[in-house]
Amino acid sequence: MNIDGKPWRTIWPEEGGRSVAVIDQTRLPHRLEVRSLATLEQAAEAIRTMVVRGAPLIGVTGAYGLMLALQDDPGDGSLAAAFDTLLATRPTAVNLQWALERVRDRVVPLPPAQRAAAAGEEAGLIAEEDVAMCEAIGDHGLALFQQLAAARPPERQGQPLRVLTHCNAGWLATVDWGTALAPIYKAHRSGLPIHVWVDETRPRNQGASLTAFELGREGVPHTVIVDNAGGHLMQHGLVDAVIVGTDRTTRCGDVCNKIGTYLKALAAHDNGVPFYVALPGSTIDWTIADGVAEVPIEERSDREVTHIVGAGVDGDPSEVRLVPEGSGGLNPAFDVTPARLVTALITERGVAPANEAGLRGLYPEA
Amino acid sequence: MNIDGKPWRTIWPEEGGRSVAVIDQTRLPHRLEVRSLATLEQAAEAIRTMVVRGAPLIGVTGAYGLMLALQDDPGDGSLAAAFDTLLATRPTAVNLQWALERVRDRVVPLPPAQRAAAAGEEAGLIAEEDVAMCEAIGDHGLALFQQLAAARPPERQGQPLRVLTHCNAGWLATVDWGTALAPIYKAHRSGLPIHVWVDETRPRNQGASLTAFELGREGVPHTVIVDNAGGHLMQHGLVDAVIVGTDRTTRCGDVCNKIGTYLKALAAHDNGVPFYVALPGSTIDWTIADGVAEVPIEERSDREVTHIVGAGVDGDPSEVRLVPEGSGGLNPAFDVTPARLVTALITERGVAPANEAGLRGLYPEA
Repeated sequence: MNIDGKPWRTIWPEEGGRSVAVIDQTRLPHRLEVRSLATLEQAAEAIRTMVVRGAPLIGVTGAYGLMLALQDDPGDGSLAAAFDTLLATRPTAVNLQWALERVRDRVVPLPPAQRAAAAGEEAGLIAEEDVAMCEAIGDHGLALFQQLAAARPPERQGQPLRVLTHCNAGWLATVDWGTALAPIYKAHRSGLPIHVWVDETRPRNQGASLTAFELGREGVPHTVIVDNAGGHLMQHGLVDAVIVGTDRTTRCGDVCNKIGTYLKALAAHDNGVPFYVALPGSTIDWTIADGVAEVPIEERSDREVTHIVGAGVDGDPSEVRLVPEGSGGLNPAFDVTPARLVTALITERGVAPANEAGLRGLYPEA
Repeated sequence: MNIDGKPWRTIWPEEGGRSVAVIDQTRLPHRLEVRSLATLEQAAEAIRTMVVRGAPLIGVTGAYGLMLALQDDPGDGSLAAAFDTLLATRPTAVNLQWALERVRDRVVPLPPAQRAAAAGEEAGLIAEEDVAMCEAIGDHGLALFQQLAAARPPERQGQPLRVLTHCNAGWLATVDWGTALAPIYKAHRSGLPIHVWVDETRPRNQGASLTAFELGREGVPHTVIVDNAGGHLMQHGLVDAVIVGTDRTTRCGDVCNKIGTYLKALAAHDNGVPFYVALPGSTIDWTIADGVAEVPIEERSDREVTHIVGAGVDGDPSEVRLVPEGSGGLNPAFDVTPARLVTALITERGVAPANEAGLRGLYPEA
């Protein structure tokens, strides 16, 4: 997507493939800084410290990390050690393991002298496939948005379609386009007027920081709201649709996404607002049916609740304490939205109802 | 309530009635400071700058403000000017006007030399009546909590009753006890084990700051959560009841309270968790039936969304920016929870279902 009129991705090879550049997402939204990753250790550190985040982007960064390791030493021992180092950076990220295995399987049969170049090529392919998948989600979602816009009453025709999103499922979490934001970008670029309500998404505020940054730099009209406000906006007819991403989707269509998603789905259901979830097929967990009962929910440090980081007067990151001394917090990172509250799932293969028949129709091979 | 073992109120006369002391709530939770109000202008300024907040406390502060004005000049002109000055500090606060009129009507017939003392006496009566009303809410709510606790399955007996609250409807918003927190204090003091989930309540974070402060200093076990987390906790059976306050209640039982209350009511309803609203009868607006359609919702500055204030490293208030340059916010301060989502209303006269018959049963004179 664009930043102030120029096209960007979250990761790209530079110096003829000798290193890889990434946007340092720990500095967003207040600073846009590019970091160069020239060694395996730099790539691993970038994943570990969340310089890059989002499952697809982590996978691509890992793949390039193998390339960087093989440039230093293309031997089998180096490959195995690099694989282990990268996999350990974020052990629960399924995409990371998948990408690392794909690059490893590609280069293992090759003579050492060809391995680094092949790894770079494979990493590039993974990145391009992710871009294509996100763009396909965008196209399918755009069609839905166009239907929604056309079905509005006469006095709303030509007015912006008002879409609410939670957290950041945008191009910063992928290589380009994003998942939940892809249909929004497609709408904006196609001339369908759109306005986005951006949930700030406490505790880590990925909405207020990353989603607002993405939309602002692409030029998409948007307004940041606290997570408490969405229900009120829906009660007053100010939201035409909700669209969010998902970290894991059960085969029955339950959606595990950033904490607070469930509350927005309840409000959408209570007010007749369509609630869409955008996802690549890779997030579907075919082994699980009941999300509330079966998806384990990560609990993160309570410091994310008791403190918050923003830009101080000098623009540099500054942390402030929000609770009194002696008060602690609890910080579940995700919740599960039952399929009954989901209007439709938008995938790279098309749109399906949130149930097992719908998903198996799109992914018959699963 | 107690602060670290010593009883406090939010406001009290000092120096034999020559001045009035208040807790400076703009400094909480990171600093506990008492401010002395010795003149009309100091009392007006304290209301205007939210050194004191909460409708009942504002009313009492206004009443004492008239006393301070009459100590300087007990004449009719002074009384009228003080009345206008105080009323203009927070023009929408119904309690303020009611308290000012009550003091004025008491002192107008008196000779000037007796007016200041009478105003102080009337202000003290208003304060004591508020304390008694809040304590009665607490007693009625405690009975409900005891029923809830007794009805739990055997394995939960003796475990803490887990109550979720939103915003601050505690003693800091009144003179003592509070409304929604009064039953919690009653439970804690009566030996019913209780644990409170405290919604931080963005954007102004009255939960993370004021409610957590109150509960912590009284010694009530509590955990601060982001506003997004409550639904997840209810899905997993970790909330036995929700209790909140209200700024305005329609005669049909719709409840206008801090933004985000509606989302918690939806989650409670979806998970079979009782949702209680605590209120003094004075918050019932008998002229209004449909809260969503008829209650005007205040929109506050978007700076409360785009920025946040906490304690910096030195413990002093420090503001940080949360959104990128160029992104704005929208800040509706309240939302309306429809009566169909409210399990019961807890008033100073007892508990009623959230409908017109229930309210008229308690307030037949209305």
